[in-house]
Formats: sequence, structure tokens, C-alpha cells
Amino acid sequence: MKIIEMRVTPIAIGDPPLLNAAGLHAPFALRTIVELVTDDGRVGLGEIPGGKVTLQMLRDAIPDLIGCDPFQLNQIKQTLINHFGDGGTSEFKNTRPWETARINHVYSAIEVACFDLMGQAVGRPVVDLLGGVVREQVPYSAYLFFKYEGAGGELGFGTAPAATGWAAARQRAALDPAGIVAQARGMVEAFGFESIKLKAGILDPDLEVDTILALREAFGPDMPLRIDPNGAWTPETALRCGKRLEGVLEYYEDPVRGQDGMAQLRQQLAMPFATNMCTTSYNDIPGSVAAHSEDIILTDHHFWGGLRATLELSRVASTFGRGLSMHSNSHAGISLAAMTHLAAATPALTYACDTHYPWQTDDLLVGGPMAIEGGCVRVSREPGLGITLNQHALQRAHQAYLDFGLTDRDDEVEMRKVDADWTFLPVRY
Amino acid sequence: MKIIEMRVTPIAIGDPPLLNAAGLHAPFALRTIVELVTDDGRVGLGEIPGGKVTLQMLRDAIPDLIGCDPFQLNQIKQTLINHFGDGGTSEFKNTRPWETARINHVYSAIEVACFDLMGQAVGRPVVDLLGGVVREQVPYSAYLFFKYEGAGGELGFGTAPAATGWAAARQRAALDPAGIVAQARGMVEAFGFESIKLKAGILDPDLEVDTILALREAFGPDMPLRIDPNGAWTPETALRCGKRLEGVLEYYEDPVRGQDGMAQLRQQLAMPFATNMCTTSYNDIPGSVAAHSEDIILTDHHFWGGLRATLELSRVASTFGRGLSMHSNSHAGISLAAMTHLAAATPALTYACDTHYPWQTDDLLVGGPMAIEGGCVRVSREPGLGITLNQHALQRAHQAYLDFGLTDRDDEVEMRKVDADWTFLPVRY
Ligand SMILES: [Mg+2]
Ligand SMILES: [Mg+2]
Repeated sequence: MKIIEMRVTPIAIGDPPLLNAAGLHAPFALRTIVELVTDDGRVGLGEIPGGKVTLQMLRDAIPDLIGCDPFQLNQIKQTLINHFGDGGTSEFKNTRPWETARINHVYSAIEVACFDLMGQAVGRPVVDLLGGVVREQVPYSAYLFFKYEGAGGELGFGTAPAATGWAAARQRAALDPAGIVAQARGMVEAFGFESIKLKAGILDPDLEVDTILALREAFGPDMPLRIDPNGAWTPETALRCGKRLEGVLEYYEDPVRGQDGMAQLRQQLAMPFATNMCTTSYNDIPGSVAAHSEDIILTDHHFWGGLRATLELSRVASTFGRGLSMHSNSHAGISLAAMTHLAAATPALTYACDTHYPWQTDDLLVGGPMAIEGGCVRVSREPGLGITLNQHALQRAHQAYLDFGLTDRDDEVEMRKVDADWTFLPVRY
Repeated sequence: MKIIEMRVTPIAIGDPPLLNAAGLHAPFALRTIVELVTDDGRVGLGEIPGGKVTLQMLRDAIPDLIGCDPFQLNQIKQTLINHFGDGGTSEFKNTRPWETARINHVYSAIEVACFDLMGQAVGRPVVDLLGGVVREQVPYSAYLFFKYEGAGGELGFGTAPAATGWAAARQRAALDPAGIVAQARGMVEAFGFESIKLKAGILDPDLEVDTILALREAFGPDMPLRIDPNGAWTPETALRCGKRLEGVLEYYEDPVRGQDGMAQLRQQLAMPFATNMCTTSYNDIPGSVAAHSEDIILTDHHFWGGLRATLELSRVASTFGRGLSMHSNSHAGISLAAMTHLAAATPALTYACDTHYPWQTDDLLVGGPMAIEGGCVRVSREPGLGITLNQHALQRAHQAYLDFGLTDRDDEVEMRKVDADWTFLPVRY
């Protein structure tokens, strides 16, 4: 089995006006789709967050991949490192501190596509190539956002995932506790989620805490709750809010910035701390161990360097007493399939994973969007990832990318369209 | 593909009278062979160090394995943990501090056999299921021992590996520098090794250091040299000997016992430290990181819990700036094949691996022993491990086990047959 073609397609998928500490989601979220075609006629799929540099690196990598055997991942990775460096060079380092070396990012898209090919070639689902099934049903959590009215741009070729009541609830603004509780009810009713995460760091912190308390009131103590201010709070604010949330939160996600800040706050609060901002690469692990900055690492195969690298993170995490949960960006079904196979094979991943999937209005899969039922995605038993790309949908999503004209996500620019004076502040409150 | 039969066979393979800090090798080394038979007629092979408890656990595990799919390694491991505990219980913990929980040991034999089956089923060598080939030729080091005259018990069905000059050199006693240099010449000439390890902690430490210096004199500065006193030296002796060896050793392996002892000595000597005694399980990693007890971990899939667990160790090691080498016990060809596939897929394994294989007088493989040429074993491109068990040889090795009557290795008892007053001392010099 040899790779004879690599297609790299930037796409835009509909995304509602969700608020976060960095600003506002644009009407379309950018992703890049990788298709690896082999001499025996198989197509392997990968998906990563969009962006100019990532796109160019993937395109530049095409000649490197032609002729490769998808099983020879060590060789493929070395070829990419030979081409782009190992991430130490500034040119290919992400500009946001919580993102890791772009080489890991680019490799992850290719690695997932290779796993899809390997699975297809041997007639086994990807999960079986990662150690096999720990859980057939992978739990995800409801991911709530303060948001403006609207469901974002729509391509019109499918709703991902279809859910009658949710289609209306997804449209509605949510800018206070009551709005978020209504959003939560819509999402939980449609998908059966059994844990809830609130994106915070946007409105007044006490209002955000009030929102968590309203969710507790609405869903009772058996519904695990998480809040994620994306490091936008000062230590004082985070301590005060944390005190209000002791006994309420399943975990406190990135209340403040940096491993030291997290570690100091963690000493003062009786609750687990989680991060996808201060410990986001293997380079950060020694610092995490020294400071004990978190209890739970939110892994993400797109950033940690692929499926196998994330399984290795699971071992690192267990070795140092860290739990594992999973981070998400706005994503389509290829990422959801990869996340599900990975989570299904990771014993230490005992927290429900994040996903933005209910927010996306379109997906690119033959047969429509993947189902989330009882809060879970069932891991496929079909060979590979178990999904097929709808080429018509891919082309429309690519056209949307061209038409929309955005090449790099910038939530600050988007926010200014609503509030001309708004400026991103790493620590706001 | 389902497992329909599991055969567990204790064997004895000829082993010369090699000396080490624990005493003397018996005329036969004990191993246990696992054969997993599937409903589609395949046989997967695993091999681990012999011993009563391990043997009984493997036999007790047979009903757990029947019906299992070899790809479902997470489920198989969980089944074993459900049966035997996770290693926390003393009953199944090894008595020697440098050996890890026996559950890892037992699981590793089964996991390797499952990888052999997976590879056969998909038509791929095991290395391809571990991330693919980093190196086609896996370098091993010459493993020298002070020894008495003789080649140990022999079953007479093959010499592993055949090497004319070496057959005579292997017989000879080696109890001084000249004897070891002659042994090294015989072994290096026969197998082309490009690095040399001396087992120490037996004779007077200064004589052992003299031996290393004689090897340096004989082979020149381009031949990496290692010495392994197995923790038998006091800090004072290890410091004095280490000073004599600065600029000479590739690494200093377990000169003293314990992570703290290693860490303190390491501060005083300008050479890398290696261990397979003070950091031998994931439980030891936090202590290793805190103390910085070594520079290089000698991994061993038999003890770290299988091939995948060892790849994960590779990530842990890289994350904390540790290099990787590989430990060996007296072993037959199934272990050598597994070690070679693993090393071929492990980028961070940049030191030549240990192997006792040239010392073993018999092997159990169809087609005879595996070849070591240019100091390397070429990783097989055949499906699975790429080896087939000679059932006749297996039965004779099992008969030797029964006839010999030894059920647990005890080098102290063996030494007393030569020197009635000899007693094992953890720290002798
Ligand atoms: Mg987060
Ligand atoms: Mg050793």
C-alpha cells in the first residue's frame, strides 16, 4: 500500500456567534481536510484547524508523502521533521502560547489519515489499532457558550447533527444565566449529555458563576459541571469565583494563566484543576510536574501530535497522577470520528470529552452527521475511521472557504464588528 | 480472529556458568513460552523469564484468554487485572526490588503473542504495528561475563547462534582482564558487535576496572564500553572506580543501589548513568524525575508491561531528557525477535541493546537461531514476529526443564555448589 496522492482542502463550516475570551466566532469555522489516496484505491481522512501556515505546510508536504507506506509513521514523521524542523524554529511555531509546534499539528492530520488507511487495509476500526476498545460509547459533554442570536453561516447541505428542538435552541441568544440554562436544556434534551461545560471569561465573572449555580439548580447535583474562563481571570477573581464554586464543579478549567499561576491557585481551592492552556505539549510536562499546575490534562490529538502521541500522553498523565479529559475546537465529523476512536482506546480518559459538534450546522460525511445519543458517540466497528467523505459537500465547504475569504481565525476582528472598541485582553477580569 | 487455545510451556535452555553479583548462572536458564492459537489456525508466540509464580499465573489465565480477539489488548489487560490485581498485592509482586509487578510480566508475554497474531493476520511485521521502521538493523552490544570453564547444559538440537570461533571461546573461563579481552575478541569477531558491556560486581572492583581499561586498550577509543556492577558497590568504591573510568565509559550502569544513591554519585562523576535496577517501572518515574537518578533507562518489554508500554516509556524518557537502552536476561529467540521489532520502532532507543543471545547454546526456532551480523539483528519483514517455533525443540527444552528440576532461578544456590561459603550481599565491595 503506497500513497499516490494527497489532497489538502481548506474548508469553512457554519458556526454560530459564540463568545469566548478571545472574542467572537465568525459565521464560518475554518478547517483543513487531508485526503490520502493509495495505489489500492483507498482514501484516508484527516482534519485539523484551518489557517494559512498549516495549509501551506500541508501543501508543501505533499511531495514528501507520495510513495510512502501509511504504516511507516515513524518515517513519515521524520520526513516532515527533515522538511520543516522539529518545531524549535520560530517560523513554524504557533503564535498562540497554548498551541504547540505546528509540526505536531500537521503531522496529526496525516497520521489520522494513515490510521484510517491502515484500518481499511486490515479490515479493522482504528480503535483496534490503538490497543482496542475500552468503551464502545464515548461520552462527550454539553459545551455551552454565551452567544448572540443566530446559527452562523450555513451551507445548507445538512445539519450536524440533526436534532429538532436543538435547531431552534441553537439559534437563540444566551447572555445571562436563564439563557444558558435554556441552551443547556435544548442541548441536553437533543443529545443526552451527562455533563456540562460552560465557556467563560467573557461576561462579568460573578454573572458567569451565577450561571454555573443556575445550571446546578436546574440539573441537580448529579450533573457534573465545568467552567472554562480561558485564563482571563486574575488570581484574585479566580480565587473568589472558585470559592463560590467549591463543591459544585467537576473541574475548574484554566481559571488563570500559566503553570505557576494555576499551581498557586490550586493550593487555595478544594477542587480539581484542568488545563488545555498551560500544559499543552510534552515540553510543558516537566514544568507541570515541578509546579503541579493541574489535576487533569485536556488532551487533543490535533495539538499533541496525533493518536499515538496522545496515547503516550495518557501514560505520562497516569504516571504523574493526572487525569485526562479532551479539548475541542469547532470541528467537523472527521475530527469527531478520530477523537472517538482515540477516546475509545484510552483507559485513562475517564472524563467526558469536549466537543463543539452540536454547534456546527454542516458536516461532510456520507450518510449525514454522526449521532450523539445518551451524550455518547458509539465508536464505529467499520474498518478505519468508519466514515466516508461526501465529495459534493467537501466542494461546497471549500467554495464557502473561498467565498468567505477568511484564511485565519481571528475572534477579535469578529468581535469588533459587533463592538468597535473591543480589544483582546489576555487577562480581563 | 479468536483465541481458542493457550499453551504455556516452561523450558530450560543451556546457559554457561556466568558470574554476576547474585551468584552463578545454572547450566540451564528458565524461560516460559506462550503460544496463542486462533480459530483461523495461527499461532502467536511470547516468551518471558521462567519461574513458578509466573508459570502458575499464566496457566491460571488460560480461561481468561479463550475467546479473546488478539486486537483487544486493553480488554485482555483488564481481564488479567480483574483476575490477579494490578500489582499492588504482595502475592503477585516480584520479590526482587528491580523487578516490577508480575502482572506486567505476565501481560507482556501475552501481548507479544497477540502482536505476533495481529501481524500475521494483517500480513505485516510487528514493527509496522508499532509505528513502523526507524532502523532496519537493530544494534546489540557484546555482553561479557566473568565466567568459569564450560558452556552450560546443552540440549544438542542447535547452537544459537552458530559461530565457529565463538563456540570454543564461549567454553573458556574468563576470570581476569586477559580472559575477558579474549572473550570479547571471540564474541566481537563472531557477531561484529560495535559496543561492549561488562557484567561486574563480582571480582575485586579494581580488577574489574582494570578489565575495562584492558578492553579500551584492546579495542581502542571507538568501541563504546559499559560496566554494570548491579549495585554491588558502595558509594565510595563506585566513586573511586568511576574516577578511573571517566572518559572511558559510554555509560555507568547501576554502580550503586537506589535512586538517591545513583543521583548523589552522578553529581560527582562526568559520565552518563544508566539503570535497570533503580527505575524499573512507571511507579519509579516520579522518583527518578525528582532525584535525577540516571541519564539512560534500560527498558525491557518483559518487565515494563509489553511492547506498547515500552513505546510509552520512550515518550516518558524523552520528555524528561532520559536516553533509552535495553536490558536483557538469558533468553531464546522469541524474546530476541520481540526485542528487535520493538527497538526497530523506537526512535529514542539510540544505544545498542543488551542481549544474552550469544551465550545461549540452544534455540527453538525453525531454521535455526537468529543471525547477529555486524552487531545487529535485521528486523524481519515477514508477518508477525517472523519466526516459527520448532515443536520438537520446544518439547526437548520442556523435557530439559522437567529433568533439570529447577523451577526458579537462584544464582546464589548455584554459586554455593562451587563455593560453599558464598553468600549473596546486595552491596559487596
Ligand atoms: Mg479550555
Ligand atoms: Mg543491568
